Amino acid sequence: MNSFGDRIRFTVFGTSHGVAVGCTLDGLPAGFKPDLDAVRFELSRRSPRASSESTSRQEDDEFEILSGLFNGCTDGAPICAVFKNKNADPADYKAGTVRPSHADYTAYVKYSGCNDPRGGGMFSGRMTAPIVFAGALIKQLLACEGISIRSHIANVGGIIDDPFVPTCCSVPELDPFFPLVNSGKKPLFEALFDEVRSCGDSIGGTVECLISGVPVGIGEPFFDSIESVLSHILFSIPGVHGVEFGAGFSLASMRGSEANDAILAGGKTSTNNSGGINGGISNGMPIIFRCVFRPVPSIAAEQDSIDIETGKAVKVRLSGRHDACILPRGCAVIEAAAAIAVYDLFTRGGNAHE
Amino acid sequence: MNSFGDRIRFTVFGTSHGVAVGCTLDGLPAGFKPDLDAVRFELSRRSPRASSESTSRQEDDEFEILSGLFNGCTDGAPICAVFKNKNADPADYKAGTVRPSHADYTAYVKYSGCNDPRGGGMFSGRMTAPIVFAGALIKQLLACEGISIRSHIANVGGIIDDPFVPTCCSVPELDPFFPLVNSGKKPLFEALFDEVRSCGDSIGGTVECLISGVPVGIGEPFFDSIESVLSHILFSIPGVHGVEFGAGFSLASMRGSEANDAILAGGKTSTNNSGGINGGISNGMPIIFRCVFRPVPSIAAEQDSIDIETGKAVKVRLSGRHDACILPRGCAVIEAAAAIAVYDLFTRGGNAHE
Amino acid sequence: MNSFGDRIRFTVFGTSHGVAVGCTLDGLPAGFKPDLDAVRFELSRRSPRASSESTSRQEDDEFEILSGLFNGCTDGAPICAVFKNKNADPADYKAGTVRPSHADYTAYVKYSGCNDPRGGGMFSGRMTAPIVFAGALIKQLLACEGISIRSHIANVGGIIDDPFVPTCCSVPELDPFFPLVNSGKKPLFEALFDEVRSCGDSIGGTVECLISGVPVGIGEPFFDSIESVLSHILFSIPGVHGVEFGAGFSLASMRGSEANDAILAGGKTSTNNSGGINGGISNGMPIIFRCVFRPVPSIAAEQDSIDIETGKAVKVRLSGRHDACILPRGCAVIEAAAAIAVYDLFTRGGNAHE
Amino acid sequence: MNSFGDRIRFTVFGTSHGVAVGCTLDGLPAGFKPDLDAVRFELSRRSPRASSESTSRQEDDEFEILSGLFNGCTDGAPICAVFKNKNADPADYKAGTVRPSHADYTAYVKYSGCNDPRGGGMFSGRMTAPIVFAGALIKQLLACEGISIRSHIANVGGIIDDPFVPTCCSVPELDPFFPLVNSGKKPLFEALFDEVRSCGDSIGGTVECLISGVPVGIGEPFFDSIESVLSHILFSIPGVHGVEFGAGFSLASMRGSEANDAILAGGKTSTNNSGGINGGISNGMPIIFRCVFRPVPSIAAEQDSIDIETGKAVKVRLSGRHDACILPRGCAVIEAAAAIAVYDLFTRGGNAHE
Repeated sequence: MNSFGDRIRFTVFGTSHGVAVGCTLDGLPAGFKPDLDAVRFELSRRSPRASSESTSRQEDDEFEILSGLFNGCTDGAPICAVFKNKNADPADYKAGTVRPSHADYTAYVKYSGCNDPRGGGMFSGRMTAPIVFAGALIKQLLACEGISIRSHIANVGGIIDDPFVPTCCSVPELDPFFPLVNSGKKPLFEALFDEVRSCGDSIGGTVECLISGVPVGIGEPFFDSIESVLSHILFSIPGVHGVEFGAGFSLASMRGSEANDAILAGGKTSTNNSGGINGGISNGMPIIFRCVFRPVPSIAAEQDSIDIETGKAVKVRLSGRHDACILPRGCAVIEAAAAIAVYDLFTRGGNAHE
Repeated sequence: MNSFGDRIRFTVFGTSHGVAVGCTLDGLPAGFKPDLDAVRFELSRRSPRASSESTSRQEDDEFEILSGLFNGCTDGAPICAVFKNKNADPADYKAGTVRPSHADYTAYVKYSGCNDPRGGGMFSGRMTAPIVFAGALIKQLLACEGISIRSHIANVGGIIDDPFVPTCCSVPELDPFFPLVNSGKKPLFEALFDEVRSCGDSIGGTVECLISGVPVGIGEPFFDSIESVLSHILFSIPGVHGVEFGAGFSLASMRGSEANDAILAGGKTSTNNSGGINGGISNGMPIIFRCVFRPVPSIAAEQDSIDIETGKAVKVRLSGRHDACILPRGCAVIEAAAAIAVYDLFTRGGNAHE
Repeated sequence: MNSFGDRIRFTVFGTSHGVAVGCTLDGLPAGFKPDLDAVRFELSRRSPRASSESTSRQEDDEFEILSGLFNGCTDGAPICAVFKNKNADPADYKAGTVRPSHADYTAYVKYSGCNDPRGGGMFSGRMTAPIVFAGALIKQLLACEGISIRSHIANVGGIIDDPFVPTCCSVPELDPFFPLVNSGKKPLFEALFDEVRSCGDSIGGTVECLISGVPVGIGEPFFDSIESVLSHILFSIPGVHGVEFGAGFSLASMRGSEANDAILAGGKTSTNNSGGINGGISNGMPIIFRCVFRPVPSIAAEQDSIDIETGKAVKVRLSGRHDACILPRGCAVIEAAAAIAVYDLFTRGGNAHE
Repeated sequence: MNSFGDRIRFTVFGTSHGVAVGCTLDGLPAGFKPDLDAVRFELSRRSPRASSESTSRQEDDEFEILSGLFNGCTDGAPICAVFKNKNADPADYKAGTVRPSHADYTAYVKYSGCNDPRGGGMFSGRMTAPIVFAGALIKQLLACEGISIRSHIANVGGIIDDPFVPTCCSVPELDPFFPLVNSGKKPLFEALFDEVRSCGDSIGGTVECLISGVPVGIGEPFFDSIESVLSHILFSIPGVHGVEFGAGFSLASMRGSEANDAILAGGKTSTNNSGGINGGISNGMPIIFRCVFRPVPSIAAEQDSIDIETGKAVKVRLSGRHDACILPRGCAVIEAAAAIAVYDLFTRGGNAHE
């Protein structure tokens, strides 16, 4: 289903080249006055920017709120926001030919050819606009609780940013449009992106995200661990192929004596290989995860594929301009998705009889 | 909540040293005659075995089915299975002292000290017995549909088994108790486990899992992608800290031209970096994922911790015998969890109006 | 939450005098080509009509579909439909004074005064427009399965229409705008409505609904009986205060020997006091229920109330024109809600392993 | 599905003549110390009593708690309670012959004959034992919040108890085993039950229930109104065929000027035709509903039915002793179900941003 959440319910709708994409967001408290300019700013982080590393197709990220605000405050009704699609050019994509590593083939089979194939339809990255919208609202609610979410480009093609300090809750301000811990490395990334773009190719990368301020005791046994709920929404984001928490896959080579986080008086830990989570529940340390984006599958090179109707082998060559690397835009999406998941868990609160 | 699933609903209950652990499994079709010996065999794969790499504590994995079978067949009522706890020795764990990287501290805070702390309570690995039980039933239902699930120990401390062939649906039989693609490497792993055990330490590792026979079109946009639903349950398993699909984190260094899977006539792909999934939906290729287990946090070495009631720093040293490496047992749990998730998605089926 | 359904997920949003009301409807099969004129016709049945028994306020029931149709067919994405609000005149309602037996007081307290109070906000009858929209789509899907839903005005103020024949699946065509089994009684009802309207008063009534064509075996134990799921949505409709199935409340005076429905060869029953349901599951006979609407609480007479901000007693007198009796419009809403509930249960299907 | 609830999750399992019936109850706060004797007392109210108006079959209502209590307090894990079945005598029911107005026929078709038919299987009234168990726990939690639930036998065959005073929160103590507002009427009911029993027949009846102490603002738009959630669980109880709130079906003959509840300073209303609910949300007045039980369908008289396997007409005559009227026992079940529903809504709380 196109819905996420237990305490809140977040539903996305629409297709890339249809009338609109949008969302409903149910379960926010009434009386919250969102800063809509801050929402627009978050959307600008996700937006493709001409003359940058992202696609130059003109999308329109203006939203209309149809429901849920009264006198500028949440009124208890679900928020419904709509992003009308403009300037869509379905000619960018050949009908009939499925693009490798896109959802064209799987969607066609799943929906017996009735799905909207233009621009990937409901599988388009365009669907992340409502995610960023909802996440931006929820970030504001989380900020009221002292919870903040930051991410950066951690690794692209072996160019590696400095990691977050996993035991440190305070994260310095990062460039919102090109978030790096070590901003001095930006030229290295840009040079790589330029080289990739000049080949008509794309490249993947890893985003690291740190969530600070989550109190001890958030997360639910047995199946709604923080990791479970976060990964659930993260793996919904187009292109995410892996998620790891704390020391992650490097734990495969660690001993318990090395991986265990010694507990200090007060409950903090000296290291944070657990990523701020024990038994699926927050331990008061920063929650840290990394997720990997595959390279954007839209590339200029000719590829082997099939015509979906005839089943015959064809060559496909995609025109249009596409992201060389999705990560600068993707950080905003990761943060928004994380905000939605954390808020849903946070509002379940503790579990003690008073 | 302690429930998982949409079409099926799987609920676990109990604590490690309480009366019992168990589960209810609702939503299976009526008229299915499970092979309970096969279920017991799967449980034996999860069971700690004396004189092996696992804990020598005697657990009892005998189950009683209270509901859901009539004349040996499912009868439409929820299946309820109970595993009584025997031979529990709560003296193994010091009351008051929280064990590093366990859930002792987080559970204490979440439940204001009312949780059952013995043996990790509801956060214990003991809870995986009902998961394997349910997964073993469901594996049989999946087998009727031509779907099979296999896993192996892929990497422990840099000792690396041969990978599954990602484009090949047929997996050779593996040793169920020590699954390796290249069984010749078993002595290397055993030697490592012996060395780790001799130090009173533990070590993590990576499991690789291959699911074959899933037809094209399984998985749901936008939030119930195969990756989302699989990772949700996988991250519920104690100790899992990372999940990746297809080429996973290595995609951070791949170009689109390298990562894209060329589509061949008939819909198969020449490579399988996508892990059998495009847009969250199965594409007919094997579904491949890897997940990492952290080292078991119960080790013999003295560790820094706190007394939960006084808040003061203490040293903790755990007696008892524990798993040097959970992976040989963990494979059965991973497969069971994957079976539950895949079945839940599979039974949603396609989505076309006929 | 503002969502209903398990196999489908139907969400409503908006407020009476805000930008719009609307809905998302997720889970319909792809490839279904709805007759949108039939949808508009159903909406016209719900619409207030000048110079009739209903309010003369001009509402606008034109909808825009933002998502979910491609080439006129469902495409697998959620359907999102929006009804923009026009001609809203918030001056109709005094701010500060809560109207007796409306949700003004409860909503104010629940949302700490942040709710949109104009026209009842999210508690307005206006919210039934998206219900009729969704129900009209789903009626078409049910018709493909041979399932039809009919209702009539059964009782208003002691004027009683002939009942449906509870053992008869075929229902004659009724006037869609004033559905009566015995159309000869229409003048009696109209005279009553005129009398009530002339007093500036309103009157309640009972709707009877018959659902034919539901195969044996629909409905789920233990908590998703047909009665449970139908009543859940029916009691969401503003003004519904009672729901009964089959012989309903008259069973309080019946003996088992009288109430039991003898089973005939083939499975049909000779009577239908059970209302087509045994053990919460359809038995193949028509499903019959009745529900009662309270009188519309908006009346011309001066009433005792309070000012919500000062808490002081005030007199309230409502201007504007309101429905003397909601039933002629309400039948369309009842049928739509029933369609949504029955479809949600129908698509769970039987439960046998094949 | 066999689960109910949003904030809590209550699941029942088992069949009448299988190994056991039982339940899991997830989501209660940790640290609550239930009075298990009070739970047993509530179960005794539901229990059949020899030499009384109920069936003389010996059931056993002793429960074992497998999970969820530690040191006598809830520990955060789901509560699992099991009622083993004893003294089951499947010979009471003829195999092959379906009993009129039972679920025998519908269950057989739904589950293709694989269901457990003994004693009604999972459709048996036996399933209400876990409902009363859970309701009894939850009544204690509600009592901590000042919420109490009372019911009485309102009407059986035209013998009518005095109603609750709908505007009065304080309900006098009633006989828990034969609850009547006017206990002087007990002989009239008993005489009727004796007469019905002497005929080997049964009779239906209406239960009235009053819930006091619910604060203003409980209940959720649009689909989780108090009426929706209460009726959902009430219609799951075997034999319930109608539910009405406040003035209920009598509203069909009331004018708005009569039905509207004038609001007094402080928010109370002078009458309570709304049953304590406006717009689906509690208004601070007592919540009042009535529900009707059909006559128990197990009667001594010979009835027309069919043999389910041959499809041929047969005569069925049920041996054994059955309830002449379920109401004295049914009151405990209605109260328990209401407690579960109200608690689930209550724990969603208000909805204001603080």
